[in-house]
Amino acid sequence: MRGFYIGRFQPYHDGHHAMVGRIADEVDELVLGIGSADDSHTTHDPFTAGERIMMITKAVKDFDLTTYVVPLEDINRNAVWVSHVESMCPDFDVAYSNNPLVVRLFEESGIEVRQSPMFDRDRLEGSEIRERMIADESWRDRVPDPVVDTIEEINGIKRLQHVSDSDSLDRYTAEDEAVDEPAIGDEG
Amino acid sequence: MRGFYIGRFQPYHDGHHAMVGRIADEVDELVLGIGSADDSHTTHDPFTAGERIMMITKAVKDFDLTTYVVPLEDINRNAVWVSHVESMCPDFDVAYSNNPLVVRLFEESGIEVRQSPMFDRDRLEGSEIRERMIADESWRDRVPDPVVDTIEEINGIKRLQHVSDSDSLDRYTAEDEAVDEPAIGDEG
Amino acid sequence: MRGFYIGRFQPYHDGHHAMVGRIADEVDELVLGIGSADDSHTTHDPFTAGERIMMITKAVKDFDLTTYVVPLEDINRNAVWVSHVESMCPDFDVAYSNNPLVVRLFEESGIEVRQSPMFDRDRLEGSEIRERMIADESWRDRVPDPVVDTIEEINGIKRLQHVSDSDSLDRYTAEDEAVDEPAIGDEG
Amino acid sequence: MRGFYIGRFQPYHDGHHAMVGRIADEVDELVLGIGSADDSHTTHDPFTAGERIMMITKAVKDFDLTTYVVPLEDINRNAVWVSHVESMCPDFDVAYSNNPLVVRLFEESGIEVRQSPMFDRDRLEGSEIRERMIADESWRDRVPDPVVDTIEEINGIKRLQHVSDSDSLDRYTAEDEAVDEPAIGDEG
Amino acid sequence: MRGFYIGRFQPYHDGHHAMVGRIADEVDELVLGIGSADDSHTTHDPFTAGERIMMITKAVKDFDLTTYVVPLEDINRNAVWVSHVESMCPDFDVAYSNNPLVVRLFEESGIEVRQSPMFDRDRLEGSEIRERMIADESWRDRVPDPVVDTIEEINGIKRLQHVSDSDSLDRYTAEDEAVDEPAIGDEG
Amino acid sequence: MRGFYIGRFQPYHDGHHAMVGRIADEVDELVLGIGSADDSHTTHDPFTAGERIMMITKAVKDFDLTTYVVPLEDINRNAVWVSHVESMCPDFDVAYSNNPLVVRLFEESGIEVRQSPMFDRDRLEGSEIRERMIADESWRDRVPDPVVDTIEEINGIKRLQHVSDSDSLDRYTAEDEAVDEPAIGDEG
Repeated sequence: MRGFYIGRFQPYHDGHHAMVGRIADEVDELVLGIGSADDSHTTHDPFTAGERIMMITKAVKDFDLTTYVVPLEDINRNAVWVSHVESMCPDFDVAYSNNPLVVRLFEESGIEVRQSPMFDRDRLEGSEIRERMIADESWRDRVPDPVVDTIEEINGIKRLQHVSDSDSLDRYTAEDEAVDEPAIGDEG
Repeated sequence: MRGFYIGRFQPYHDGHHAMVGRIADEVDELVLGIGSADDSHTTHDPFTAGERIMMITKAVKDFDLTTYVVPLEDINRNAVWVSHVESMCPDFDVAYSNNPLVVRLFEESGIEVRQSPMFDRDRLEGSEIRERMIADESWRDRVPDPVVDTIEEINGIKRLQHVSDSDSLDRYTAEDEAVDEPAIGDEG
Repeated sequence: MRGFYIGRFQPYHDGHHAMVGRIADEVDELVLGIGSADDSHTTHDPFTAGERIMMITKAVKDFDLTTYVVPLEDINRNAVWVSHVESMCPDFDVAYSNNPLVVRLFEESGIEVRQSPMFDRDRLEGSEIRERMIADESWRDRVPDPVVDTIEEINGIKRLQHVSDSDSLDRYTAEDEAVDEPAIGDEG
Repeated sequence: MRGFYIGRFQPYHDGHHAMVGRIADEVDELVLGIGSADDSHTTHDPFTAGERIMMITKAVKDFDLTTYVVPLEDINRNAVWVSHVESMCPDFDVAYSNNPLVVRLFEESGIEVRQSPMFDRDRLEGSEIRERMIADESWRDRVPDPVVDTIEEINGIKRLQHVSDSDSLDRYTAEDEAVDEPAIGDEG
Repeated sequence: MRGFYIGRFQPYHDGHHAMVGRIADEVDELVLGIGSADDSHTTHDPFTAGERIMMITKAVKDFDLTTYVVPLEDINRNAVWVSHVESMCPDFDVAYSNNPLVVRLFEESGIEVRQSPMFDRDRLEGSEIRERMIADESWRDRVPDPVVDTIEEINGIKRLQHVSDSDSLDRYTAEDEAVDEPAIGDEG
Repeated sequence: MRGFYIGRFQPYHDGHHAMVGRIADEVDELVLGIGSADDSHTTHDPFTAGERIMMITKAVKDFDLTTYVVPLEDINRNAVWVSHVESMCPDFDVAYSNNPLVVRLFEESGIEVRQSPMFDRDRLEGSEIRERMIADESWRDRVPDPVVDTIEEINGIKRLQHVSDSDSLDRYTAEDEAVDEPAIGDEG
């Protein structure tokens, strides 16, 4: 049986890893879909799809499981999203997700969805880990070792800190920095 | 004379219907443009274009009016939006709208726009009706009968309640649920 | 040596103009990139790319500098944005920007970036000038003369006031006007 | 029962009309999908979606059938095309098509497809009718009367003759006219 | 060292496989990029990205090599294509390609490209193998075993034969079938 | 009075230059629109928009004319193309074109178009000049001097020869090279 598990994996952390471990007990093969594959270099999505593929591929070698790691570009049309996923991924029998929209879309398409409580959710949350990276607090103990290696290899902490920096001394160019993520060209 | 009236129609309700009734006194034919036709399965836009076409087509049979119901995909470039509408719709002589941007764009293109006060506006508002659907409060008395039929046929209340559900017990997968609409792939 | 300076230029004002003046001391030629070239007719981005090209081209004649004014449509993928800019612009040796994301993206691509404090930043800020235009307060003393000419020629103040107007008497069609910019088709 | 019938309808002609007549015997309601809705002003696709909506809506009044005429923008991804159609159209039970790709895509999605021999196919073919329009030969006897009215109202023959004109005296600007359709900007 | 090898892999065959074998002698890790990932269901591109991911992942297990199989959606802008590839793939040191455009684009971006003669090129060519599939001639001896398994599992020969079928008895719906690939909606 | 003149300018040559000279007698300002701005690195469109901006800006300094050189990305929807051009360009009073489609689209939008015979059309044609570049025949005498400079600075002949090279010794990777332009990922 083949399963499907989707996340943004910014970054892939121990919560995701524990989830994959549990899924591994139920399926023979697993497709890991990387959502928002085309986003990168923002506070919310610092890492590119390629960087996330590397993190995940190396980390999931821990499990006795055939895996497929598939970047999924955003398509911004809920009504065709399931077809988009199905065409980009090897065929799967069951999807794992706790996101209400994802659950709904798969169910309307007749695909079985399994929901599952997350492990240690306050500590293992993407946004919490990214905030720690920005603040130079400890984060290495919350992600698998190959993820640490990848982030260090790509100088990822520096990037995240840089793009999250809205404390520019110069307000003039910063007129639009109140917006969540600085948009390119927002120079006033 | 042919008129044009645009809305998102999420759902088509008695306020829209009263408006069409008044327009029917002024024109022979009416083009009903469905805005954001490519959005669906969100709290703000629960119904697909196809579902909205069905609601509207059945409801406007009440009027002695040739109608054209046209889905309009978002084009996200204000400066070409009027051309987009004109190419997708039968030619029209006058547009009905109270939205300042729509009024401005049509006027800059030399198209006559008529504005008109809305009927019973507090009770008949799309967001109010969708909130009632989510909360299982009464809404059937605020939309034409064929709209009730369509929504029940497609199991629309269930869908809206499902995608609006951000009270997941599991915060882990919910890191991004503070965002207005849950984005696909926002699993943490 | 050729430099690159990007802004949204909504509108091009004395702060931008002073910046170009300083850059003119360091380079022989300057590419002025107009960000969000495809946005217009909103409170945040009232003027079209064509209107901004005209403002800038006429204003920069003040300087002894070969200039290229290049509209840059948004591409919404940070990871390919530098290539997009490079392919649309004459080759440049150094980029001028204070926006952290822009700085980061250029630096990851190996392009030199120079940052520079802005002049009189509280008074010369795009959003402040647009608010003055909306409120019919003085703004002509904050932009170069050719910018005044262009905005008057295109009847730009009227447009900005019109699209920023969310005080419609009719709340019915205004259900979505609480959203930052009214989206087309948001009629309730 | 609701059926679905797709064509480009450039223009809607007596062959299409006979087909709709036969389908009308099998279904209560019919969705007419206008393919390549975003194409116009070429020899292959002279008429806009709006013009085609008008032709078809007026012509199908001949039948005792509830109809929905839906423009379908091209999506250029076969694997999501069925979802695109389903989201834009009222739900249907059976699709009518003789195009092998369309048949295949619907069948892979579990949708019933009915194929049907076309009536008088040599005479009633879109390309043949368009060639007659270009050559000022008779074509009015091959389309329903409302189609003649619409094409005359929009001055459609003139447009088709104009865009099909590659006999420019000036070859210089015509370097790319050997390409099937002249692309915008192909001036040499 | 990490290499990059791109192909459309329609299907992945013994020529590709021999090439991967030779690359395996030169690198430790290999990224296999699947070009035109968003194309499927045509004579030229019958298989979806997901189906091709499965074929390749299973076949390359033959080699002692860490592999990453990455679908690459077409971006249709040569000038940003290298950035697109780099952001979707783990970082690589050398690219393998014989396609002149690919070689040029990588070289202009400063990336090393290695070209290599193909093995048994007349027999092992994608178009030849697809023609054999259409004609029900032998093809299983030209692809790795897991590719046979995948194609049989997805009923791929049937699909390819179906979409390549332009010998419709009914020319009416076939007006546009002279075009290389039947486009959706091309019904006359 | 302001004019508009569009071309792909691959490259900008003496025929274009003579045309601009004649237009300069009729207008005070001229907008030069660069069509297919997003195409580059092909036999048909070798140069990027940025490279073409540089060629043209330097060449038109010959004339006593305020010029605006504006890259125009393809929009692939004829019905909105005029709006696209108008929003990207300073407002113009008259358009110069011999392309029948361009003429038609402007005329349907109520914009005056002037057609003009081209000078020395057999010798001065984009495709002829590009073929000479590929074949290492003389071409420098057919373009203004600044165009020669730009093409040499960017090593443009080498690029054009490289991407036009379909005489690969290895047919295997070349299966799709029979297609006009080699598409990325077409490796068999």
